[in-house]
Amino acid sequence: MSCVLCAGDGGLVVARTAKFRVVRAIDGEEARRFPAFYRLIWADHVAEFSDLGLADRHVCVDSVTEIERVLRALLAPTKINLASLGNVVPHLHWHVIARFDWDSHIPAPVWAAAQRDEPSGGAAARLAQPLQAVDAAIAAALSR
Amino acid sequence: MSCVLCAGDGGLVVARTAKFRVVRAIDGEEARRFPAFYRLIWADHVAEFSDLGLADRHVCVDSVTEIERVLRALLAPTKINLASLGNVVPHLHWHVIARFDWDSHIPAPVWAAAQRDEPSGGAAARLAQPLQAVDAAIAAALSR
Repeated sequence: MSCVLCAGDGGLVVARTAKFRVVRAIDGEEARRFPAFYRLIWADHVAEFSDLGLADRHVCVDSVTEIERVLRALLAPTKINLASLGNVVPHLHWHVIARFDWDSHIPAPVWAAAQRDEPSGGAAARLAQPLQAVDAAIAAALSR
Repeated sequence: MSCVLCAGDGGLVVARTAKFRVVRAIDGEEARRFPAFYRLIWADHVAEFSDLGLADRHVCVDSVTEIERVLRALLAPTKINLASLGNVVPHLHWHVIARFDWDSHIPAPVWAAAQRDEPSGGAAARLAQPLQAVDAAIAAALSR
């Protein structure tokens, strides 16, 4: 009955509104391989995007877009990946992930098998900006 | 320089508007394992969701929502999966996939490793409705 995204933050909180929070993944392999991995987590426990009304869906996707824009502006990724899956945790959340031509999985999805070794020195060191600057820019974009 | 989603339909076209088309995956392993696998493919060749203006983003996501609603209403899936990745084909397209507790990959993403054998008799035979009825309902929903 318990939901991990109701019970806890699910990552490092970088922004919070009445409707949702944005977290950065900080644990485990995914954070190490894909350091610019953010999630918009809807505050209410709903499973599917279509469980939201029109206005909330637009708030949600406009905010996902703001995160995407910050990642593009600061990190110039090869590609942005957006996804709302929720097979394991059916509480609405959107993955917003900056992908790079040097990351361990490109062009495969982050959930697939690795295509190559992780970059020497670590993936986070390859980013054009420190993650703290990205976090702050996302917080600023969502407070406008 | 050529883009497969500019050069071809990319699946069985079930709906087409001035802004996008919706196709159902009909080729290979993905269509066999995940028969209710639809894609909304934006007509213009843009790579990222944030390349669209606000009105187009809302048209896009409202239409993705319509597809999701049809899948939920007709097929009662365990979960809907939405994703815009484009690492291989950077032409904006949204995956809208009905997932089931009997499918070969649940709860993993469709891009991960299989978790079990495919259902005997085939996945399509497990659906509550023929795919042609789902296709028609999507076309009707998007023409309203």
